[in-house]
Amino acid sequence: MQAHDVKNVFSMKGGQGESSYLKNSKAQLRDLQMMLYALEETLDKITIPPRGPGKLLLTAADLGCSCGRSSLVVADAIVHNMTNKLCRGKHVDAAAADPEFCFYFSDLPRNDFNTLFNLLPPHAASSGDGSGRRYFAAAVPGSFHDRLFPERSIDVFTSTFSLHWLSQVPDEVTDTRSPAYNKGKVFVQGSSEETGAAFRRQFQSDMARFLRCRAAELKPGGAMFLVFVGRPSSASPTDLGRSFNLLGAMFEESWCDLVDEGLIDGGLNIPSYAATLEEFREAVDADGSFAVNRLEHVMGSRLAVDDDPHDRRAVGRRVANNQRSIFGPLVEAHVGRALTDELFARMERRAEELSNELVDEMGVHYIVCSLSLV
Amino acid sequence: MQAHDVKNVFSMKGGQGESSYLKNSKAQLRDLQMMLYALEETLDKITIPPRGPGKLLLTAADLGCSCGRSSLVVADAIVHNMTNKLCRGKHVDAAAADPEFCFYFSDLPRNDFNTLFNLLPPHAASSGDGSGRRYFAAAVPGSFHDRLFPERSIDVFTSTFSLHWLSQVPDEVTDTRSPAYNKGKVFVQGSSEETGAAFRRQFQSDMARFLRCRAAELKPGGAMFLVFVGRPSSASPTDLGRSFNLLGAMFEESWCDLVDEGLIDGGLNIPSYAATLEEFREAVDADGSFAVNRLEHVMGSRLAVDDDPHDRRAVGRRVANNQRSIFGPLVEAHVGRALTDELFARMERRAEELSNELVDEMGVHYIVCSLSLV
Repeated sequence: MQAHDVKNVFSMKGGQGESSYLKNSKAQLRDLQMMLYALEETLDKITIPPRGPGKLLLTAADLGCSCGRSSLVVADAIVHNMTNKLCRGKHVDAAAADPEFCFYFSDLPRNDFNTLFNLLPPHAASSGDGSGRRYFAAAVPGSFHDRLFPERSIDVFTSTFSLHWLSQVPDEVTDTRSPAYNKGKVFVQGSSEETGAAFRRQFQSDMARFLRCRAAELKPGGAMFLVFVGRPSSASPTDLGRSFNLLGAMFEESWCDLVDEGLIDGGLNIPSYAATLEEFREAVDADGSFAVNRLEHVMGSRLAVDDDPHDRRAVGRRVANNQRSIFGPLVEAHVGRALTDELFARMERRAEELSNELVDEMGVHYIVCSLSLV
Repeated sequence: MQAHDVKNVFSMKGGQGESSYLKNSKAQLRDLQMMLYALEETLDKITIPPRGPGKLLLTAADLGCSCGRSSLVVADAIVHNMTNKLCRGKHVDAAAADPEFCFYFSDLPRNDFNTLFNLLPPHAASSGDGSGRRYFAAAVPGSFHDRLFPERSIDVFTSTFSLHWLSQVPDEVTDTRSPAYNKGKVFVQGSSEETGAAFRRQFQSDMARFLRCRAAELKPGGAMFLVFVGRPSSASPTDLGRSFNLLGAMFEESWCDLVDEGLIDGGLNIPSYAATLEEFREAVDADGSFAVNRLEHVMGSRLAVDDDPHDRRAVGRRVANNQRSIFGPLVEAHVGRALTDELFARMERRAEELSNELVDEMGVHYIVCSLSLV
């Protein structure tokens, strides 16, 4: 896999198997439920656009939707909130009280959209009794670092658990002659200051593209709700906190085993970066198209929280499945199926050994943000 | 599989294998190229909508897009034709000369949208040199017998090689007490007059829903281009012409073998109907929302035309793969993978024996139609 192929090979793990994203994204779903107050606040900031002939149409798009249930929760929350507001508010006329919604599920082309489509209830208009889905659904394949929608076509963008993914591994990180070369490592955490700086530059460049594209695609009065993995302002770019550092190290040790045994050549880097609030605000200020309504840290769930914390094997299996649901397709593109099985089997054994530490450490540090188009 | 499950199990065969739709739809692609004159005529009928602020946006949707290349050909033809017209025409201002296009690929939720997405070139805005795809792409999962899009949101609908698929097998056809019961048969061709009449009623009911939904979704001034399998006005509903009758009989004989050997229970019916021009016009007139610009027969390619017609084994394999690319997923949902392999292996042997007849007979009888919203 080349550094620039991320767009063509990356996805969360599809299907409905034991290590699928669908079966391993309960923590994200629970965390999202906890953050819906900030989505509702974001929706309150939207200026309802002037209506053309016919029904009022509101359009929303979730970027990096993956194939779990988070995106459906977001869609339902938007429809519910906006419908209530329109029925209650100043817009009490027939067309505004009975608006139409279009919800776009967007992710890279390899995302398992069929699994996502199978989660969709039938549209209310087809279900006969008026129950069911209250929005028209569409899938949009592509990178959120590029343009995905026509100009001025979207009322609200959401993106949950996705913006920490970079468009590529920074070139310097894979260049053996660069001081940022990430020798023998897979993640940015625990790496050198130069490597961390290269990832930070990539994040800033990616965020600049992201914000520019979204500013063009939003309707006037539109807004964005964003949740992504971050780090505390005091931490260096190579320090993602105890649990991520542990997980990264387990992955890298298992990976290095396979390299040492001559089974693989190495050369995998994970294109992910956890920003601080300040780094993110810097990108928003540099772009200049958005006002910040809310920008804050939220601590997410602990890892492996559904399992009996004393059952080491269950925790090990859960951690390995969870990691595979996220990194599996990238690893498979790099070394094939059989060696991916081997890698995560080794990671599972390491997670068994470290299960107490993995369970005790708090999990994920998120940045939650609400922005309005100026 | 229940009669009403068509929506949840039906699709062309996905992936890129030997019996995939992608690898077995060359005849459709060639036939479509031959019919593009009628698509261009349809586009000429579209009234360009008044512009809002920003760029002119034109939206098109292909219904029953499947995962072959036909839909991409349609999208490119629309973008090319409309861009030329706008640049040349009365609309010579900057926004009209540089319009944006949104193209919706729509099919049932089981369609292999990932294979389709992998065929898409990168968007021109992202490719750097301005080459590549000139439209924003989205996939819309659902049945074209139901609402799929917001009101007044689409400029042009296209549907190629799809409208002969019914929303379900008519209830009477599977009811052992009904005179329309299709005992021991899988297709409508070669069946009784009562069975044919039940299929005809289903087609009329489905077309009524199709036209009502599209009339609501089209913008004022919008148009539709439709291509689907038909039959001559003189033929009964149970007579699809020599080649389809041959193919249907081969399928049914192979199917009956498996029933007789106790391997399967039977009870499969294919929800497909080939209408006459008159039957289709009757549905359009009953709906009343559309004016007919063009409505005609076109003869499509011969079957298995790429093979050496004297190589019986190649013709047999081609015919079996072709039939499996179309009926495979429906059959698999009914009897599983292994018995589907067995069915099409038997069909392949029958096609070898009949290869001369299959090659000599003219292939598919299409209805080509252009409609404008009144």
